[in-house]
Amino acid sequence: MPWTRQHLLGLEELTKEEILEILDTAASFKEVSTRSIKKINALQGKVVVNLFFEASTRTSNSFALAAKRLSADTMSFSSSGSSVSKGETLIDTALNIQAMGVDAFVIRHSAPGAPHLLARHVNVPVINAGDGCHEHPTQGLLDMFTIREVFGRFEGLTVAILGDIRHSRVARSNAWGLRKLGARVILAGPPTLVPQAIGAALGVEVSHDIDAVIAEADVLNCLRIQFERKAANYFPGTREYAAIYGLNAERMKHCKKDAIIMHPGPINRGIELTPDLADGERSVILDQVQNGLAVRMAVLFLCMGAKPEKRTA
Amino acid sequence: MPWTRQHLLGLEELTKEEILEILDTAASFKEVSTRSIKKINALQGKVVVNLFFEASTRTSNSFALAAKRLSADTMSFSSSGSSVSKGETLIDTALNIQAMGVDAFVIRHSAPGAPHLLARHVNVPVINAGDGCHEHPTQGLLDMFTIREVFGRFEGLTVAILGDIRHSRVARSNAWGLRKLGARVILAGPPTLVPQAIGAALGVEVSHDIDAVIAEADVLNCLRIQFERKAANYFPGTREYAAIYGLNAERMKHCKKDAIIMHPGPINRGIELTPDLADGERSVILDQVQNGLAVRMAVLFLCMGAKPEKRTA
Amino acid sequence: MPWTRQHLLGLEELTKEEILEILDTAASFKEVSTRSIKKINALQGKVVVNLFFEASTRTSNSFALAAKRLSADTMSFSSSGSSVSKGETLIDTALNIQAMGVDAFVIRHSAPGAPHLLARHVNVPVINAGDGCHEHPTQGLLDMFTIREVFGRFEGLTVAILGDIRHSRVARSNAWGLRKLGARVILAGPPTLVPQAIGAALGVEVSHDIDAVIAEADVLNCLRIQFERKAANYFPGTREYAAIYGLNAERMKHCKKDAIIMHPGPINRGIELTPDLADGERSVILDQVQNGLAVRMAVLFLCMGAKPEKRTA
Repeated sequence: MPWTRQHLLGLEELTKEEILEILDTAASFKEVSTRSIKKINALQGKVVVNLFFEASTRTSNSFALAAKRLSADTMSFSSSGSSVSKGETLIDTALNIQAMGVDAFVIRHSAPGAPHLLARHVNVPVINAGDGCHEHPTQGLLDMFTIREVFGRFEGLTVAILGDIRHSRVARSNAWGLRKLGARVILAGPPTLVPQAIGAALGVEVSHDIDAVIAEADVLNCLRIQFERKAANYFPGTREYAAIYGLNAERMKHCKKDAIIMHPGPINRGIELTPDLADGERSVILDQVQNGLAVRMAVLFLCMGAKPEKRTA
Repeated sequence: MPWTRQHLLGLEELTKEEILEILDTAASFKEVSTRSIKKINALQGKVVVNLFFEASTRTSNSFALAAKRLSADTMSFSSSGSSVSKGETLIDTALNIQAMGVDAFVIRHSAPGAPHLLARHVNVPVINAGDGCHEHPTQGLLDMFTIREVFGRFEGLTVAILGDIRHSRVARSNAWGLRKLGARVILAGPPTLVPQAIGAALGVEVSHDIDAVIAEADVLNCLRIQFERKAANYFPGTREYAAIYGLNAERMKHCKKDAIIMHPGPINRGIELTPDLADGERSVILDQVQNGLAVRMAVLFLCMGAKPEKRTA
Repeated sequence: MPWTRQHLLGLEELTKEEILEILDTAASFKEVSTRSIKKINALQGKVVVNLFFEASTRTSNSFALAAKRLSADTMSFSSSGSSVSKGETLIDTALNIQAMGVDAFVIRHSAPGAPHLLARHVNVPVINAGDGCHEHPTQGLLDMFTIREVFGRFEGLTVAILGDIRHSRVARSNAWGLRKLGARVILAGPPTLVPQAIGAALGVEVSHDIDAVIAEADVLNCLRIQFERKAANYFPGTREYAAIYGLNAERMKHCKKDAIIMHPGPINRGIELTPDLADGERSVILDQVQNGLAVRMAVLFLCMGAKPEKRTA
């Protein structure tokens, strides 16, 4: 299938075939990171711009390293100390950077829809690296890549996404993508953090009984409690959260034999899951990080290689 | 004309021929940014250091990208979190960096003359990226490049520089350069921000009647109100400023047929000019940004290529 | 001697032969920085990560530039604005970065032993760029490189390390290394900053009589008063410190004919030494910086080139 999409704004709008195309391309790139010289020339002389309006070093470095593995140059703009702090609009900032002759934007912003706004104003690819509580498509894709790597399929799998669903763009991107790929998705956690309305909006199940969910799930994707988004206002305390909703060895006794544990990081050890599980044999958490690089290489490669005349937003 | 100057400290000291040499070199580099592989090998293995003591991402990134297009490596030092915050002098900081084997300094500093001081102590090229309210030569050069691109000449042109002249190194560099190139320059704005003394010092006209200036000008270069330099202390309010001195469509009815609008960015939309003008057909604001890259490539190329034995400060 | 060590955590554990191997390798790299194209391909396609949990631009840039001279790519993580500020552990942060496929960590941390902890958890080289008041091995090595460059030997030399020994990882690394190489080491300064216990722990002499030390020393390595570590609490005032313990021309009248002055920077001019000495003919301060680059290239080259099967921590 020839890739025709210029931007990656979310998984809600992708087809199943497009998602699989990204995963297949990522699979071919994963090997590059194991070479002695971890580079291919695909994007030589191109410039990828990280435009991060929320604090992040992990995701921004993952994108930057993905760009460098493709031999692109990288540039980084953050909100502090820049023209944004002088009152410039997002669009003016982006058009100014674009005028320097850059080839793609990777944007993270606290406002849902900011990447979509940007995509309507620039003529180079826009990759959403997280927009508020809306979508974080490359995280969703790397989760799917990791699941496929373990199970080889999506049909017949039950994927439970646990924890702070309310504030989670990761949950939304996973739910959209996994449904298209044929997996069953359950959102689970305290009622305050997992409202029925979110399940209804995403077309997936909601449960507040963690033990029941653990018994059924092939994949347990633990989200982090986002204290920086005031998530702690939604439950009495972290010890109570850990006791009722956190993953621990006792609770995992009732899980499926081949169940895996995922987490988008950074982990609050002892809250959403215990250290023995985070570092245990069911954990694929570091595989997720490794796969993230391959997925981001694939997304940059596909979107930046798409022919302008065939592009659709 | 062979280029013999090692440093670019300001436009006051350049000859007309030197300015034109930079513009001609920039013209030959502008095409590089449109290539598929936007690089030439001119400065391969060289290191260009951004030494920015004032917050900036746009100018520092423009210089960094210009250096990368010439295949140089880049390094960035800022005042926060560095040895400067431990009480080190500017000269000690620079000599230490120079000892690492770097090949050029691009410096921005709040103190007028800081680049000149630096140039007397290091033996590699020093490029002034803005020193207090003194000069910002590459901004002046990119403005001249843009004017020449539109009009093909400077003689017979009237260039109005509007707004916060008092705090503007851009105004000073433009005035010095444009006078040498044969253009007529008018500084215009409120008397508090456009004192007669500045016009006298620069040898150019001063006006406080914006409408009269608009009727005569081929180029309207709107400067931004630098709120971060307390410019708002010099007029009653932004709405009054916009009404009396700001550019808007009504006021532009009386401009010359081919007049263009420039702005060094970031724009305070609705204050120094209205959004419809900023984005309208007379605006060459984004061309300025694009040309900035070519001009900075030219400056780095010329200054770093100058033979030491022929160098003059 | 084939190099077998994967990590560089401190000079305490190195043999004399290993230290000399690094110095010899650095000598062969020093010439690279004087070439027109200052690069060799040794680490092409590798990624060196700067993981700095204490503010630093000089050391981090020196390592980054050393990596680039060897054609490696570089990545930088700092504690602010990163997953560390979201409560992630050091080990989780490092394992996540490692999962992206990086090839070495350069770490600075306020906690003594942090690099050693890291080295037990990752499977790529760890270079200590300063851990609390413990060690700063590459600074020690560049000091030794500089001493050997001037004197051609260590045996028979007296090296005085002056000033804030209490807070100084530089003093510790120098003392360990110089003793192994056969030099006599004297720690000197006010009793509050140079406790007898430190001399005893390092197996070197302690003196509180600066003038007596100056008369005997071939090398005077002045450390900076680390005001950021509250060093000023240990003496009445900077003027008194300068008068009693600072180096100045008067005091240097009694030094040995060929004595040299070193300083790890940044200098507090007029406190630990006077400007005329810092810039005078005995000063090798900028040579130290230049040699630092060669030493860091050597350390990266040796540790990253060590065969895994032969590696020892």
